[in-house]
Amino acid sequence: MPTPLLDRVRVPADLRNFSAEQLRQLADELRLETVDAVSTTGGHLGASLGVVELTVALHAIFDTPSDRLIWDVGHQAYPHKILTGRRDRIRTLRQGGGLSGFTRRAESEYDPFGAAHSSTSISAGLGMAVARDLLAAQGGGGAGGGAGAVASLPAARVADRSSQAVIAVIGDGAMSAGMAYEAMNNAGVLKSRLIVVLNDNDMSIARPVGAMSAYLSRLISSRPFLSIREVMARLARRFPRPIAEAARRADEYARGMLTGGTLFEEMGFYYVGPVDGHDLDHLLPVLRNLRDAEESGPILLHVVTQKGKGYQPAEAAADKYHGVVKFNVVTGEQAKAPPGPPSYTKVFANALIAEAEADPRIVAVTAAMPGGTGLDAFEKRFPRRSFDVGIAEQHAVTFAAGMACEGLRPFVAIYSTFLQRAYDQVVHDVALQNLPVRFAMDRAGLVGADGATHAGAYDVAYLGCIPNMTLMAAADEVELTHMVATAAAHDSGPIALRYPRGEGTGLEIPARGTVLPIGKGRVLRQGTTIALLSYGTRLAEALRAADELAAQGLSCTVADARFAKPLDTELLERLARTHAVLLTVEEGSVGGFGSLVAHHLAHAGLLDGGLRFRPLTLPDAYIDHDTPKKQYDLAGLNSPQIVQAARDALQHNTTAQPVRA
Amino acid sequence: MPTPLLDRVRVPADLRNFSAEQLRQLADELRLETVDAVSTTGGHLGASLGVVELTVALHAIFDTPSDRLIWDVGHQAYPHKILTGRRDRIRTLRQGGGLSGFTRRAESEYDPFGAAHSSTSISAGLGMAVARDLLAAQGGGGAGGGAGAVASLPAARVADRSSQAVIAVIGDGAMSAGMAYEAMNNAGVLKSRLIVVLNDNDMSIARPVGAMSAYLSRLISSRPFLSIREVMARLARRFPRPIAEAARRADEYARGMLTGGTLFEEMGFYYVGPVDGHDLDHLLPVLRNLRDAEESGPILLHVVTQKGKGYQPAEAAADKYHGVVKFNVVTGEQAKAPPGPPSYTKVFANALIAEAEADPRIVAVTAAMPGGTGLDAFEKRFPRRSFDVGIAEQHAVTFAAGMACEGLRPFVAIYSTFLQRAYDQVVHDVALQNLPVRFAMDRAGLVGADGATHAGAYDVAYLGCIPNMTLMAAADEVELTHMVATAAAHDSGPIALRYPRGEGTGLEIPARGTVLPIGKGRVLRQGTTIALLSYGTRLAEALRAADELAAQGLSCTVADARFAKPLDTELLERLARTHAVLLTVEEGSVGGFGSLVAHHLAHAGLLDGGLRFRPLTLPDAYIDHDTPKKQYDLAGLNSPQIVQAARDALQHNTTAQPVRA
Repeated sequence: MPTPLLDRVRVPADLRNFSAEQLRQLADELRLETVDAVSTTGGHLGASLGVVELTVALHAIFDTPSDRLIWDVGHQAYPHKILTGRRDRIRTLRQGGGLSGFTRRAESEYDPFGAAHSSTSISAGLGMAVARDLLAAQGGGGAGGGAGAVASLPAARVADRSSQAVIAVIGDGAMSAGMAYEAMNNAGVLKSRLIVVLNDNDMSIARPVGAMSAYLSRLISSRPFLSIREVMARLARRFPRPIAEAARRADEYARGMLTGGTLFEEMGFYYVGPVDGHDLDHLLPVLRNLRDAEESGPILLHVVTQKGKGYQPAEAAADKYHGVVKFNVVTGEQAKAPPGPPSYTKVFANALIAEAEADPRIVAVTAAMPGGTGLDAFEKRFPRRSFDVGIAEQHAVTFAAGMACEGLRPFVAIYSTFLQRAYDQVVHDVALQNLPVRFAMDRAGLVGADGATHAGAYDVAYLGCIPNMTLMAAADEVELTHMVATAAAHDSGPIALRYPRGEGTGLEIPARGTVLPIGKGRVLRQGTTIALLSYGTRLAEALRAADELAAQGLSCTVADARFAKPLDTELLERLARTHAVLLTVEEGSVGGFGSLVAHHLAHAGLLDGGLRFRPLTLPDAYIDHDTPKKQYDLAGLNSPQIVQAARDALQHNTTAQPVRA
Repeated sequence: MPTPLLDRVRVPADLRNFSAEQLRQLADELRLETVDAVSTTGGHLGASLGVVELTVALHAIFDTPSDRLIWDVGHQAYPHKILTGRRDRIRTLRQGGGLSGFTRRAESEYDPFGAAHSSTSISAGLGMAVARDLLAAQGGGGAGGGAGAVASLPAARVADRSSQAVIAVIGDGAMSAGMAYEAMNNAGVLKSRLIVVLNDNDMSIARPVGAMSAYLSRLISSRPFLSIREVMARLARRFPRPIAEAARRADEYARGMLTGGTLFEEMGFYYVGPVDGHDLDHLLPVLRNLRDAEESGPILLHVVTQKGKGYQPAEAAADKYHGVVKFNVVTGEQAKAPPGPPSYTKVFANALIAEAEADPRIVAVTAAMPGGTGLDAFEKRFPRRSFDVGIAEQHAVTFAAGMACEGLRPFVAIYSTFLQRAYDQVVHDVALQNLPVRFAMDRAGLVGADGATHAGAYDVAYLGCIPNMTLMAAADEVELTHMVATAAAHDSGPIALRYPRGEGTGLEIPARGTVLPIGKGRVLRQGTTIALLSYGTRLAEALRAADELAAQGLSCTVADARFAKPLDTELLERLARTHAVLLTVEEGSVGGFGSLVAHHLAHAGLLDGGLRFRPLTLPDAYIDHDTPKKQYDLAGLNSPQIVQAARDALQHNTTAQPVRA
């Protein structure tokens, strides 16, 4: 497929002298290139296809990278990456050593703010806008410090920072997050120039939920797209010169009446829209006008786009190809995964449904991830007991706390990495009141292609320090089923279970789980010299390591802790007293399971007597996207590294040794 | 001062047959009692005085505790406590063993949801409302589970849960938090009956900030209070029976035009107001109508109150007596604190101002706590470089990240307990991108009268696990000054410093701090047998413990780690190799400094050789409000307990010992 115009664009500056006609063709070529690239890598296709024209228009009108263009979440930025010097690597997307599936500061000066979690762009953009104004007021003094971004600015722009534009592109789904509201609430009273492009495709990952989403739908459906003449007239009325306050109020009144854009206007934004986000004839003049507007204060440009736009198989798909694996460009057919065991996500959903069949008090809460958490299946079975609150983790947790107060048994299913958004709610609203909220933390540990931004690395540390919490990690899918049953039955306080991304190990899964005794682990293999105590799905690697060590003549005990809190202190003490080496193994950071074990052993005096204790954890470093296998190699948590760690511990003499990174 | 009517009210049921006239007198007596009680205990007086009439009206109209009345934050609930069976203990507020300064489930069945951090009430209330509807639909089945709250319901109400009201009272300041927006966004599309009382006193702790606050001011100023006739007419129009959709839309249109309540209405709420929150003649009929309304969906009642209302010294004070110490009821004069060293908060502010004088890139961000963080002083000196973003910790952190991208040097000053609200932003927006944001964490450790909800217990654990972070804790006010200078100079990544509530130790403070070498501790006293390694202001206790141990013939080394991350591994290894016992001491939970030390020592093989290592941390339990001294006694972190721990470790033989709780 020839792409003559795209071939001429190495960086955005190359397209700025294109005619409107050429930009339209460029957009078509860019769409083809995006489809073709993602067909070989998989990734977030639908979102990227929806912003092809917007991407071209933004780079044509604004002086990126001097002007700061921030893509919220960043998974829609594939066309942006192709236009910003990364076309030659676009077929390495999400592959080990390749481009990130999100925006990333370290990857390009055209990515002024990295993302992956949603709803951060307005805050970051406002920070940049305020910095621009402050540094301009200081005569540019101070630029050059910080993390190096300023150094990359053309000298002319540094000299006149005040003209720099900051643009945040945020989806309608991301607007359900409180963080976006906090940022708008702040932006609305500051006088910094900031352009927020609301990319309204009426579909975040799941179907949109919440009052804001309903509001936007009404806004769009209540009136046609602005015509160019209307846009120009309204902008001219607003921006050319100061107008009398009375006239402005009359104008605001008129706009409120006629356009219905009042919610954003009440929040202090100048609202423009809706505009057809696939029509460059509209996008280009509107953006040019906003760029050149001299008035201060934040602007919200409401753009309507269609996810999957321009690629028929995506347009036809229910999820608009939100996330795809490799596919055939002509047919749209996605590569079938080889048949394998069900994913942990699916096992969790089935186990929860089984519990809910038996107990009407069980309800489920998701924060805009019904598919990712498996709760779509739960919702089909129990529509009245299923709650999708939108991208709103803080609310999700305290909402569940309220339900728990009244005798329901809520499961809040949130990825480990996203539960970080609700940390205070877990501490203050749930644990401190000892409310029986169940936390199902999917994507625990390293997560493969989504990379460091989505790693479920910290939950054992950030939850393990909280009084009243009970923490479990599933070693395999059968254990997960038991732990769902255990959590369902646990009414005496909060309880969390973690399990990884990906498939189970292929075990036969019982129709319903068995309630486990709280705080009790299990011994899988009894040996004499080395004890491997696993927390989570590293158990399989621990067993493999034990085989290898046995082959080397070293007898191993292998145990599954099941609980990080409360610890099985009896098991721990037995292991400590009867082995020369004790290794803990977990898919989490320092401060987690190994630290809880160390704390107990130290206070029990069990580290005084010569036991060689080594807590194996994720390293103190971010691990980039790659296959999970390679990620865990890097982390030192696969069986060969466990074997090595055990041997090193055994052979260690008391002189100092190089410390594990 | 006689309080004849109040004397007849043991629980709210006792006031429900009072006449309107009697309720007015009751409110007057309740106000007097509140002033008198707080004059002896100190506390949050202004907020409580503002809601005296609202408290009386809510308990008169609603069937508490069956109806769920949730006070957001809970610091305005002193009158509520007096009316709900706690009058006899009201003069124990915030004292050790006494009533909590906030609402608390464990304290009373009239406190259906505990609070202290802001903006949680709508989420919790929505959860309760949804639970009510679901359980009613299930025929009351399932009630009786959970944390015991349901068991306390009168049988009649359990039988007919559907009539139960849920009321959340939330201040205008709390509405700046994203969490409140997330909850409204969810409530606006659910059909559950929920009454949100927006208590608009135009003043949270600091002066109100943000677009929402400005919006509310416009709303109030644009029209007079609703008259009773208007209220009744509007409610009658809305609630008596289903009306045709067209008529409703016309009604909504009319309301939008006439009342300006559109922002809440666009979010799916039925807006009523504004109403004079001190006028029982208005409050009682409005609340009665809302209670009896049969229509589903959420309602927002906009009530305007005055903080400090009815007590002249409070009304006259700039902060309306937000938080007071003991005072003279007649004169309003607050007890003077004995002259002492400046607070850590003040030392921080002065140090930051000194740095900012020298460096124009330094800016400061607070989330609605300019006074509590000391940034009010900074703002006076540098108004353009100071940013109060409202109760919006998530935004505060990412806003600072955006500023750091552009070369500014932002300090985000947030209490340790409130930084929990921005955990994901610290992980994902700051640390992962290695942006040089400075976190100044006040109220680290135990905090005295504010109790467990405000304890800064977890930050070392929840930040210590994050790659790229640098963590410091100040041992005294001079150290704090150095650490502010160190953070200011640290451009290579994020850095956090923690310091406690309360006064410094009285040291002479340098005009400007000295930049400390990153990751280096200091030895204060060199001994031979026992090493005490302190992180934070327990250093003084460690030195005291060392004196006592020396008196007992045990030679002690005392060191100040200064950094939890990166650790001073050289110092650590030296201490481990040359002492029989190593104790770490910190004002934080497990998973923090002691765990980072344990992890290092274990991997360095330094726990293999017989060192007796004991990490002293906060216990795995919540510690209630009391004096910090007593709290630290309970926690086992004062010098006598350190002495005991050191002696126990030394005398420990390898048989098992009871484990520290």
